[in-house]
Amino acid sequence: MKTLNVDLGDRSYPIFIGEGIFSNPELVAPYVKGKQVMIVTNDTIAPLYLEQAKRLFGGFDVSSVVLPDGEKYKDLTHLNLIYDALLENKHNRTTTLVALGGGVVGDMTGYAAASYQRGVDFIQIPTTLLSQVDSSVGGKTGVNHALGKNMIGAFHQPNCVLIDVNSLKTLPDNELSAGIAEVVKYGLICDEPFFNWLESNMDRLVKRDVATLIESIEISCANKAKVVALDEKEGGIRAILNLGHTFGHAIETDQGYGNWLHGEAVAAGMVMAADLSFRLGWIDKAAVDRTVAILEQAGLPVVCPKGMTPDRFKELMAVDKKVLDGKLRLVLLRGIGEAITTSDFQLQQLDATLEHLTH
Amino acid sequence: MKTLNVDLGDRSYPIFIGEGIFSNPELVAPYVKGKQVMIVTNDTIAPLYLEQAKRLFGGFDVSSVVLPDGEKYKDLTHLNLIYDALLENKHNRTTTLVALGGGVVGDMTGYAAASYQRGVDFIQIPTTLLSQVDSSVGGKTGVNHALGKNMIGAFHQPNCVLIDVNSLKTLPDNELSAGIAEVVKYGLICDEPFFNWLESNMDRLVKRDVATLIESIEISCANKAKVVALDEKEGGIRAILNLGHTFGHAIETDQGYGNWLHGEAVAAGMVMAADLSFRLGWIDKAAVDRTVAILEQAGLPVVCPKGMTPDRFKELMAVDKKVLDGKLRLVLLRGIGEAITTSDFQLQQLDATLEHLTH
Repeated sequence: MKTLNVDLGDRSYPIFIGEGIFSNPELVAPYVKGKQVMIVTNDTIAPLYLEQAKRLFGGFDVSSVVLPDGEKYKDLTHLNLIYDALLENKHNRTTTLVALGGGVVGDMTGYAAASYQRGVDFIQIPTTLLSQVDSSVGGKTGVNHALGKNMIGAFHQPNCVLIDVNSLKTLPDNELSAGIAEVVKYGLICDEPFFNWLESNMDRLVKRDVATLIESIEISCANKAKVVALDEKEGGIRAILNLGHTFGHAIETDQGYGNWLHGEAVAAGMVMAADLSFRLGWIDKAAVDRTVAILEQAGLPVVCPKGMTPDRFKELMAVDKKVLDGKLRLVLLRGIGEAITTSDFQLQQLDATLEHLTH
Repeated sequence: MKTLNVDLGDRSYPIFIGEGIFSNPELVAPYVKGKQVMIVTNDTIAPLYLEQAKRLFGGFDVSSVVLPDGEKYKDLTHLNLIYDALLENKHNRTTTLVALGGGVVGDMTGYAAASYQRGVDFIQIPTTLLSQVDSSVGGKTGVNHALGKNMIGAFHQPNCVLIDVNSLKTLPDNELSAGIAEVVKYGLICDEPFFNWLESNMDRLVKRDVATLIESIEISCANKAKVVALDEKEGGIRAILNLGHTFGHAIETDQGYGNWLHGEAVAAGMVMAADLSFRLGWIDKAAVDRTVAILEQAGLPVVCPKGMTPDRFKELMAVDKKVLDGKLRLVLLRGIGEAITTSDFQLQQLDATLEHLTH
């Protein structure tokens, strides 16, 4: 088992990464302060892992709530089901919420923990690769609004994160690929040696080799932790974690949440960011080609959804959080392993990228 | 004009208290960081003060949202109307929300600010005495859930608070009294000289004498600020601010939110707390009598709602936030000007108080 410490002062916490650690109650018990535990999961994960999770917290007074699976249920209405369960079971301020599932369960459970009685503890047990390398670090929690993704939320750090790579054995192929999109992102934004390593190891990663998975997750989380530690509340540098996300959110909104997986939309978005960076003369053509190649090797889309026009992109990007006082800011590349946030580009250059990658 | 600084490190902010300061744009402009301002108010306050508030933020891009007036609308459904307005008007992360109204508007606007895009700025312009002396300090924000009051929320501090006592001229008598309940509370929990001063000045306060109002508000806010500065997230001492509130919340829930005003329920609750403290031998009968007398002088209820039984009280208090691991904790008095949080009482003594003050 590997332990990675996320260093955030008095909000620091460990991430445990390993094989089979989901069966070790002694590992998590020190991170539960009270007697009550509420496990939040969804109807896909519950039949697979809920009983195991209950055994993991065997020494506590455990309740559970099962949400419908899917990004389209990540809203205030379904968040309220968690509050209902907490209140019906008379959970008090010393309760600990446990997020058992992917990013949607993690974001909703974290936000329920941030807001229930103005803040209670929570533990994350991410079961998808995407949530393991993304939601495990950073404390971003929240739900969607009909008019925008992740528009309602809070920063709330978990007490600990438990990543058991055995849970990836039941993950569908397209969800594994979606997770790999975020893994590749860390190489692109701040870790060129990791990008090079991924180019050599992508075959093993796609085939779910355990050692390759553990190493990919550990390096991804370490990179995210490094960035987040510099900027917990996303005032500056942290924004580079959104490489591909402004384009990606536009794709997700256009397609309806859940029809394109988040990681798939981010993959196409990263190609758009690379393409625009090339048009600005910041990276060479070879860097764009390597970005496209590694994402294709991971089975990810590298162009936009059919029928989505450049105008539709620009309309949707205007309400994205990365817009500051009316000026669109994007995360772009200065090289493989170096990202910056900038509004230093011409609309014509953005148009050229949109024209090139829509169809 | 008086300025009171609430000292919370990098979350410190000023409270401006005076007559006519609502017409001074230069006072608030330094506390708005971006260009966008969203004023949130209700349909009682909007016809009285919304235009004035828009002029106050005349140099900014101002939008507004008008909620229905009343505690029964302090829920997730109506909170969502604020998010709707923010997103429809494309407000970004640099927006500033302005709470124009009483405690309900303040709690909801503050929580919308805490959660919109994971946290934006807000300014409070409380227009009721209760919100001026209570919600102005402490950063508690939130909404109710069908199964409990203030069960969903966050701690979120305003950039500044603007208290114009002119807004109290339009306040109904029963709402003035409800505010006075909280003013009296500060005397009871931590400021005996203030309690004595209130006994001498209650007539002037009830008659809305401007100087008496300003002094009462300033001392109340200063007392609350002193307690909150010691304990921002309510781990310990801050709980004394809830004197009368556990009983009061039970009354409000039983009667349906809004039928008994919060301050009225707290007044009856403080009498219950004083009565129980007397039964425990912690305060003398004279202290109970003085508590009852000052509240009666302010036109407040000093017994429970007709028909509310002791059993009903105990049922409702079990889900209150002040319950830790199954043991009921109450704020009680050790004297006038000295409150403590304790579970050090027998159920029979609580029963005696409940029997004595229900009818």
